[in-house]
Amino acid sequence: MKILNILGSSRKEGNSEILSEQALSDLQYKKVCLAEKNIKPVVDKRHSKEGYSIVLDDYEELLTDLFNHDIYIFTTPLYWYGMTGPMKNFFDRWSQYLRDERFDFKAEMSKKKAYVIVTAGANPKIEALPLIQQFEYIFKFVNMEFVDYILGQGNLPGDVRVDKAAMSKALLWNQTFSS
Amino acid sequence: MKILNILGSSRKEGNSEILSEQALSDLQYKKVCLAEKNIKPVVDKRHSKEGYSIVLDDYEELLTDLFNHDIYIFTTPLYWYGMTGPMKNFFDRWSQYLRDERFDFKAEMSKKKAYVIVTAGANPKIEALPLIQQFEYIFKFVNMEFVDYILGQGNLPGDVRVDKAAMSKALLWNQTFSS
Amino acid sequence: MKILNILGSSRKEGNSEILSEQALSDLQYKKVCLAEKNIKPVVDKRHSKEGYSIVLDDYEELLTDLFNHDIYIFTTPLYWYGMTGPMKNFFDRWSQYLRDERFDFKAEMSKKKAYVIVTAGANPKIEALPLIQQFEYIFKFVNMEFVDYILGQGNLPGDVRVDKAAMSKALLWNQTFSS
Amino acid sequence: MKILNILGSSRKEGNSEILSEQALSDLQYKKVCLAEKNIKPVVDKRHSKEGYSIVLDDYEELLTDLFNHDIYIFTTPLYWYGMTGPMKNFFDRWSQYLRDERFDFKAEMSKKKAYVIVTAGANPKIEALPLIQQFEYIFKFVNMEFVDYILGQGNLPGDVRVDKAAMSKALLWNQTFSS
Repeated sequence: MKILNILGSSRKEGNSEILSEQALSDLQYKKVCLAEKNIKPVVDKRHSKEGYSIVLDDYEELLTDLFNHDIYIFTTPLYWYGMTGPMKNFFDRWSQYLRDERFDFKAEMSKKKAYVIVTAGANPKIEALPLIQQFEYIFKFVNMEFVDYILGQGNLPGDVRVDKAAMSKALLWNQTFSS
Repeated sequence: MKILNILGSSRKEGNSEILSEQALSDLQYKKVCLAEKNIKPVVDKRHSKEGYSIVLDDYEELLTDLFNHDIYIFTTPLYWYGMTGPMKNFFDRWSQYLRDERFDFKAEMSKKKAYVIVTAGANPKIEALPLIQQFEYIFKFVNMEFVDYILGQGNLPGDVRVDKAAMSKALLWNQTFSS
Repeated sequence: MKILNILGSSRKEGNSEILSEQALSDLQYKKVCLAEKNIKPVVDKRHSKEGYSIVLDDYEELLTDLFNHDIYIFTTPLYWYGMTGPMKNFFDRWSQYLRDERFDFKAEMSKKKAYVIVTAGANPKIEALPLIQQFEYIFKFVNMEFVDYILGQGNLPGDVRVDKAAMSKALLWNQTFSS
Repeated sequence: MKILNILGSSRKEGNSEILSEQALSDLQYKKVCLAEKNIKPVVDKRHSKEGYSIVLDDYEELLTDLFNHDIYIFTTPLYWYGMTGPMKNFFDRWSQYLRDERFDFKAEMSKKKAYVIVTAGANPKIEALPLIQQFEYIFKFVNMEFVDYILGQGNLPGDVRVDKAAMSKALLWNQTFSS
C-alpha cells in the first residue's frame, strides 16, 4: 500500500504537517505540497463544444502521483472554515479529469482510501465539521473510501503536540499503516 | 446601500449568475468576477517575524470594492461541495488583511450585509448545506450579518430558470433591495 | 396522491402548523398530531432473543395512516435544535417496524415522498440545518424521496406569516400538490 | 468536580454505555438512565397566560441531579441519526425550566461542562455529525462549555471495545477526570 500525503498548507512545519508526520512516522511515503505546485483553477467546460483541453501546469505530474499511490492522506489547516485555496483548486480540477479520455478517473479514484487531517487554532472539533461533511461528499462522489479523519487543535507552530487525543489517534493510524 | 456581487464561477452566464441577475434586476450594482482577477493564495505569515507584505495582484482593487459597498452578494456554483477555488483564495487572503495596519478590516466587514447564492446540478438543498454552514462561520468571524441564502438547482446552462422556489426567492430579494 | 401531515408541535396553531396549512390549503389531507397520541419510546430489542413484541399504544393506528398515504409532510417547530421529542419517539420506533414480520416497512416507506417544514424563533436558516441533515439521513435509510423543505421564522404565534420567503414557498408546494 | 452520566439508551450495557464506563472507570459518579425515568414531553406554554406549571413526573429529581453535579457526560446511541427520544424529551423540558422562577436555570447550566458520547453501528464519524452540531447549539444556548465528544462504532453489544480510537480517547478523558 503506497501512501501519498497531500498537503494544503501554505506554511512549512505547521500543526497539520506535524500531525501527518506523527501518522506517517518511520513509513515510506511521498509528500506533495500543493502550495508549491502550479495548479490553475478549473475552467468549467462541461457545456462547451470543444470540451476540456490539457492545462499546462503541474497537474499532469500530480495525476501520476494520484494513480501510483493507494492511500491518500489529505492534510490541511482550516482556513476560513474550509480546506485551503490551493487544495480547493486541486479538487476542482477533478471535474476536468472525470471527462479525460486518457483514463477512467472515477474508476481509479474508487480504488483509493482517503484519510483527512485538519488542524485549527480555535475549535476544530466543531468548526471543522462542515469541512468533514464536504470531504465525505467528495469521496462518495468518486466512490473512494473515507477511512477516518483527525481534528487537531493548535495555533502557534507546534501547539498540536499537546493535543493528546489528536496525537494518539495519529499514532493509531501509524500502527495501522505499519502493519 | 451599494451592492457588490462577488462571483466565483469560472464560466459566464452560468446558473448561479442567472439567479444573481434575477435578484439584482433593474438595480445598480457592481459585479466582480473573481476568476478574471489575479488573486494569489494566501501565504500564512502570522507566525513569521516580518509579517505579511503587500501582495502584487488584483486584491488591492478588490479591497477598494469591498470597502465601498454595503451589501455583498456572494454567488458561486457548488464545485466539489464547496465554493470555487478562486472564491476560496479570495477569503483565505482575509487572514492577511485582518493584520493590515492600513485599515481595521474586521471593523469594516462588520458593517456589511452578506447574501449567498449557490447553485448545483444535483441536490443543492442538501449537498450545499456544509457550504452554508461554512459561510455562517466566515461571516460570524468578522461580525458580518448573514442575511439570507438561495440554493438553486440547475445543470445545463439556464436550467435554474425552472427552479421556481429559487427564482421567486431571488425576486423577493430584488423587492427588498429596491425598497 | 394522498397526503398525511405529521405534526410534532406540542401547541395548537403554532407557526409551523400555519406554514403547513398554507402548503395544504384547499387540499384534502389527514393531519396527525403526534403530541396527542400515546407513542412509547422504542425499546431496542435488536439483540435480544425474543425480539420486538407489539407495543400497546397508538402506533398501530399510525402505521395504518403511514401505509395509506403517499406524501408525508413532517411539520415540527425546532425544539433545542432538533425535532420535538414526540416526533423523535415516532421515528425511533421505526427500528421496531423494520423488523416487523407483518409487512416490509422499508419497502413501504421507499414508495413515499417526504416534505419537511420547520419553524424557529431565532435563525432557522442556519440553526435548523443539522435537523435537515438528520432528516436526509432518515429518509435515505428507508429510500424515501426527500422532495423539499421549508425553514420558517416566527416566535410569537402567527409571526411566520410575515416570513415572505417561507410563505411563498409553501404556496408553491400547494400549487404542486393541487396539480 | 462531581460527575453526572446522563444515559439515553433504551438498552442496558450497550456500546455507548461501555464507552462511558471506560471514561469513568474507577471514578465516583452518578448514572441516570433517562429511559427508566418518567419524563413527559414538554408542552409549550411560552405564549399562554398561565405559563408553565410544575409537571408531575421524575424531572424534579433530575433537576436536583443537574444542579448538584459539575460535569455532565451525555451518552446516547445514535437512533435515527439523533439522540434517543427520551433524551430529546429531557432537553425539550429545559424550555420550561428556563422560565421557572425557583432558580436561574441558564445561569446554573452555564457553570457546567458537557461531554458527549455517541455510538452507532454504521458510520458514526460522519452520520453523527449533525447530532454533534445540535449539541453544540444546545450547550451554547445555555453557555455550557462543550469540552469534547467521542464517536464510537459498534453494532453488536460489546463491539465498541475494538474501536481503538474511541476506547483510547475515553481513557484520555478518564485520566483528565482523575487528575
